[in-house]
Amino acid sequence: MDHDERARALHEALRGKISITPKRTIESRDDLSFVYTPGVGCISRDIAKDVTLANVYTTKGSMVAIVSDGSAVLGLGDIGPTAALPVMEGKSVLFKRFADVDAVPLCLDVHTADQLIAHIRALEPTFGGINLEDIKAPICFEVERALQDIGIPVFHDDQHGTAIVAYAGLLNALKVMNRLDQPQRIVINGAGAAGHAIATMIAEHAGKDADAIRVENIIVCDSRGALYKGRESMTVYKNELAEITNIDTISGSLGEVIRDATIFIGVSVGGMLTTDMVQTMSSEPIIFALANPDPEIMPDEAHAGGAGIVATGRSDFPNQVNNVVAFPGIFKAAFTYGYKQITDDMKYCAALGLARLIDEPTPTNILPDIFEHDTAAAIVDALDPKSLH
Amino acid sequence: MDHDERARALHEALRGKISITPKRTIESRDDLSFVYTPGVGCISRDIAKDVTLANVYTTKGSMVAIVSDGSAVLGLGDIGPTAALPVMEGKSVLFKRFADVDAVPLCLDVHTADQLIAHIRALEPTFGGINLEDIKAPICFEVERALQDIGIPVFHDDQHGTAIVAYAGLLNALKVMNRLDQPQRIVINGAGAAGHAIATMIAEHAGKDADAIRVENIIVCDSRGALYKGRESMTVYKNELAEITNIDTISGSLGEVIRDATIFIGVSVGGMLTTDMVQTMSSEPIIFALANPDPEIMPDEAHAGGAGIVATGRSDFPNQVNNVVAFPGIFKAAFTYGYKQITDDMKYCAALGLARLIDEPTPTNILPDIFEHDTAAAIVDALDPKSLH
Repeated sequence: MDHDERARALHEALRGKISITPKRTIESRDDLSFVYTPGVGCISRDIAKDVTLANVYTTKGSMVAIVSDGSAVLGLGDIGPTAALPVMEGKSVLFKRFADVDAVPLCLDVHTADQLIAHIRALEPTFGGINLEDIKAPICFEVERALQDIGIPVFHDDQHGTAIVAYAGLLNALKVMNRLDQPQRIVINGAGAAGHAIATMIAEHAGKDADAIRVENIIVCDSRGALYKGRESMTVYKNELAEITNIDTISGSLGEVIRDATIFIGVSVGGMLTTDMVQTMSSEPIIFALANPDPEIMPDEAHAGGAGIVATGRSDFPNQVNNVVAFPGIFKAAFTYGYKQITDDMKYCAALGLARLIDEPTPTNILPDIFEHDTAAAIVDALDPKSLH
Repeated sequence: MDHDERARALHEALRGKISITPKRTIESRDDLSFVYTPGVGCISRDIAKDVTLANVYTTKGSMVAIVSDGSAVLGLGDIGPTAALPVMEGKSVLFKRFADVDAVPLCLDVHTADQLIAHIRALEPTFGGINLEDIKAPICFEVERALQDIGIPVFHDDQHGTAIVAYAGLLNALKVMNRLDQPQRIVINGAGAAGHAIATMIAEHAGKDADAIRVENIIVCDSRGALYKGRESMTVYKNELAEITNIDTISGSLGEVIRDATIFIGVSVGGMLTTDMVQTMSSEPIIFALANPDPEIMPDEAHAGGAGIVATGRSDFPNQVNNVVAFPGIFKAAFTYGYKQITDDMKYCAALGLARLIDEPTPTNILPDIFEHDTAAAIVDALDPKSLH
């Protein structure tokens, strides 16, 4: 059987990758009287008087909803909510396996930002956190921002999970290359969820935090080339990027703006970067080609162009940028400390915490391995209230 | 510690009564590649092409959402969605324990029928069934009916679970009293969710099915007395009941209309029925006083008035009418046979199946015991497509 056939056989045998387990079994009428009526009555009355007791007496304090509309699933695009369900179930397995966090997939048949916002807002009584997943840009930005006030953390993993891990990898790549104190010329190809979050994270902390990546310039490209202030027909979210990047208002294609760059970060589609383009970059550039399953450039092609360090989103090459080292720990930390939002500072501290897990980074070892490192514990440590700025 | 304090201690120790369990653990990169990317990609593509494959490859085919707005919780009333959560978690434990069905509590911060309908409709990609719970009348009727076309069973347990179990108990009570072939004069006190469903179930099958309860008349009372055609200011749902009950258009209070009745069914509030009122009923009447936690009349008072058989909703008296013998099996059957709706005939067959579990009913043993009988298996048997009418 090939890999797809084995995946089908496994999924058919399991009929769903998760199940519900009672923490307390019911073996007698007495058990029943505590787990359900009449014993549960006083718990409900207590919570009706003081809603914060739900965090003590129920799953609300520890349960995540993994919410998707199925509009931007893996590399498959807008395949709809039902087809997104196996991905969200897989995510639930990862939450449990790597941070002991309980997470319920909720794939929703909704089609506008307003519907998603209304739907998720109504989930607040049941969940302690919302992981937004595989929701297309720009709806994902609108939804996440509108929900920051609902009293539980709302975190779009495609934006911030990717940004946290990419940032950690970049820090260690710069450390390997002995360039941590040098301002970088960074080109990001892709202005969707991940591109927006990575550009924002790098721009916001540069020059402000001692441990942050130093920046000479950042240029974000979409399919029409560099974003710059005043470019026509940009969404509000692309205009935001143009405000905080591209200080010299440079226009041009990726092939033009990448000359002399020190770092390339691809969060777009396969094959966008060529060996020739890498050759026009500065000496031994850092290449993060994160498109999945086909990276913007294959590692051997990047190295042929002179790349110093290459990272991809794939597990079959060194330096995999994989969100799984971040999102389980982010929610674990939120539950541990009772955070109601995941702030920019928390995302930055999580990236630093992940980077620190690699004592001595090498060109092929800049990121923690989910099977070798307790990445969730590292993020919980990094997000201790005493560690935040 | 008293019972409430023990319930609090248990809930605080557990911090929620359910958790998520992966059916397949991830111990290696290879495991990861099947449970999540890249293996999950072909599963998503398959479902995108044929959405029915979700029933094979995901939890959709076996997962119930227990949905409540917290507007009619136990005997506590409109305590809100967060305070309803411990009850819905308890229900999830019951689903698992008594039918091996996975069920996720979803307590929603919504306040109108339209919002509930829109919200639940959007859940269809993720769930194989919807158990509506503790939603007040008349919103519960509007919501359930509007959702019958969504392609998965939507079942309001407070209506139909109660009706199924009450109907099963009545059948066995009539058997004990040797009255199965006699038309009954039935008074139902309470025109909410349970009262509507019980009255409808009895009325619809009387005279149509050989095994059904025979009826001379049914009178449903609300707090203003008997419902009858033409009574002023009745909801559309009370008008429905007036159409199918009270053939002689009798008006009057409960105390008036209960004279000469053979069966009383209380689904209202504690203390509504007195020993004196029971004495005005026909000889050895059947009394189902189902209000919780305080029944319409206590069993000893009912017997003092001459009652032949008494049932309540409580576990500390004989003949408990408890929905837990019904709802887990109803959804188990729906999943087993792929039913997209729970029809009236299915509810009726479920009641017959539960009644049959008691070989030789006695005055204190008319209903199956959840710890002694496999009630879910009995309902699955009873709802075999070959058994339906």
